Amino acid sequence: MNVHGKHYRTIWLKEDDPRVVQIIDQRWLPHKFVVEDLTDVDQVARAIQEMHVRGAGLIGATAGYGMYLAALHAPKDSLAAFMEALAAAGEQLKATRPTAVNLAWAVERQLAAMEAAGDDIEERIQTAFQVAQDIADEDAEACRRIGEHGVQIIQEISQRKGGEPVNILTHCNAGWLAFVDYGSATAPIYEAHSRGIPVHVWVDETRPRNQGARLTAWELGQHGVPHTVIADNVGGHLMQHGLVDLVITGTDRTTYTGDVANKIGTYLKALAAHDNGIPFYVALPSSSFDWTIQDGLAEIPIEERGEEEVKYIQGLHNGEIVKVLLTPQESPATNYSFDVTPRRYVTGLITERGICPASEEGVLGLFPEKRQS
Amino acid sequence: MNVHGKHYRTIWLKEDDPRVVQIIDQRWLPHKFVVEDLTDVDQVARAIQEMHVRGAGLIGATAGYGMYLAALHAPKDSLAAFMEALAAAGEQLKATRPTAVNLAWAVERQLAAMEAAGDDIEERIQTAFQVAQDIADEDAEACRRIGEHGVQIIQEISQRKGGEPVNILTHCNAGWLAFVDYGSATAPIYEAHSRGIPVHVWVDETRPRNQGARLTAWELGQHGVPHTVIADNVGGHLMQHGLVDLVITGTDRTTYTGDVANKIGTYLKALAAHDNGIPFYVALPSSSFDWTIQDGLAEIPIEERGEEEVKYIQGLHNGEIVKVLLTPQESPATNYSFDVTPRRYVTGLITERGICPASEEGVLGLFPEKRQS
Repeated sequence: MNVHGKHYRTIWLKEDDPRVVQIIDQRWLPHKFVVEDLTDVDQVARAIQEMHVRGAGLIGATAGYGMYLAALHAPKDSLAAFMEALAAAGEQLKATRPTAVNLAWAVERQLAAMEAAGDDIEERIQTAFQVAQDIADEDAEACRRIGEHGVQIIQEISQRKGGEPVNILTHCNAGWLAFVDYGSATAPIYEAHSRGIPVHVWVDETRPRNQGARLTAWELGQHGVPHTVIADNVGGHLMQHGLVDLVITGTDRTTYTGDVANKIGTYLKALAAHDNGIPFYVALPSSSFDWTIQDGLAEIPIEERGEEEVKYIQGLHNGEIVKVLLTPQESPATNYSFDVTPRRYVTGLITERGICPASEEGVLGLFPEKRQS
Repeated sequence: MNVHGKHYRTIWLKEDDPRVVQIIDQRWLPHKFVVEDLTDVDQVARAIQEMHVRGAGLIGATAGYGMYLAALHAPKDSLAAFMEALAAAGEQLKATRPTAVNLAWAVERQLAAMEAAGDDIEERIQTAFQVAQDIADEDAEACRRIGEHGVQIIQEISQRKGGEPVNILTHCNAGWLAFVDYGSATAPIYEAHSRGIPVHVWVDETRPRNQGARLTAWELGQHGVPHTVIADNVGGHLMQHGLVDLVITGTDRTTYTGDVANKIGTYLKALAAHDNGIPFYVALPSSSFDWTIQDGLAEIPIEERGEEEVKYIQGLHNGEIVKVLLTPQESPATNYSFDVTPRRYVTGLITERGICPASEEGVLGLFPEKRQS
């Protein structure tokens, strides 16, 4: 998508040096646009853990490139030593963030592809390169298709409203910054915007890390999509008063039975949508499905991050990005990063293959190859 | 309640000069404890509007003292001119904040008392003084009684849990800082704490103005009540996982039919409590009832404040209180301050007369003198 009118993805290989991976260091948005070079797996792990990059799809793509960088720098004297280094790199990457399933998925895909690539180490490095590129390309393509499917929901509401702007509420950033391009929740919105369907987005600021206020507002603004930032507390009131037509969020992991783990607070918006008869959709590429877990609430691990993310917040003061203390210094804080929205509150899932109910039957109907024999 | 071990109310007359009203300027908490002098109604109106003081009970008490200051400074040459000035002061005070019913209630009570006080202006000034003190005293006493009634709910849960700490979630600040003393939602908590019943409070930070993170955390900390600050997004997840035993909030206005207007986001917590079978109580002195409105959602006016309260946040940086920008400079924001929780999600109301269901029958059962003949 566009940054100051120029097309970017969120991750790419440096133009004149394919041994360098480049990312947008998202910690400084919207105040500063910083591109960062990553040259080894340690840097990649740090970039994921400290959230230079974040978002289900982008974490997966970054892990894919991380495995490629690991392959570049792994010992070449024996295949066993090479693969041992790659296995260690995979473990290191998987340990950075626990909730998004894309991370493990990308690592396993790289390891399996290299195993299948024959015994030549250079061949395996080339494979890692290709798989990293494929993961990124497929992520972008899946998001593009999510946009094509999801735009139909917006179009129907637009017709019903006689062309009045469709008010869409979203939580966190499931935008192109969370993927390689287009985004998941935002893909139908960008597609509607480019088709000339009037939309307006309510952007939940998404405390504590404010991915909505910092990232979603920024990327929508860069594309000229009308939007308004709101505190996370406001959505229910807007829904009670007919000011929301549709909710679309992303997900960090959705069970094949339809339970949705997403940024903390998503569950509250789903409850409010349900209470007010407003459709609540979750957009995801199939890489975000967990095909092994049945009960999302009981089984999806929920990351707990440091209390300083709640007690301090970062913003711009006199042209400088600074952190300010919000609470009494002595008060403790707790920081669960995700919650699980039970499938009964989810109207449907928007995937690259189409839209389905948030149920085992619905999901396996679109992905029949995942049916257990 | 206590500040650094010394007892304070939130508003009082200066010890050696009863023509000066003193308040805690709450804008600087928890980082600085500032006492402010108010000497005329303009200063009082500004203190309410710019939220040096806030909270249903304290706004009412401040308006009461504002009318007393207005009486002190009103023209004394004719009773008509005197009362005209007081009527104007009343309008000025009522215009400062639209949602809390206590404001109009205190102004009307002062005007009625002065009308009833006879034609002597000095007598009317003395009446205004006495009514202002009475409103403050009654507010504190009502909150003390709310504590005595509400503590029974906590005690029952404590017994059921075999003395394990009772986890209570609260939203915004309905603490002593929102009233004259004790608070509404916090009164049962302080009473439990002083009776030795172990409690732990989940403090919603309460964006955008962070009254939870700034005020509730501070006052609980000053009293040694165990508490943890959380982002507003977290409560649903905690409830899903059995980490909340009870929700108690305050209210800025509750209809006699049981609909509860309170700080934006309260409705979302009520939905989550309902979804997880957790009791959701609202604590209020009877001055916060609206005896005229039947349908809270349709009829209670909801204050919309400036977008800068969402886009900027205040905190401590290098020992200085500064504001930082959180969003892209160009992104608009919307700032509804309250929402309405429909009575069907409210387990009960804790008043100075006891606990009742959130229904017309329940409320009028406790306040039979309000029944329409």
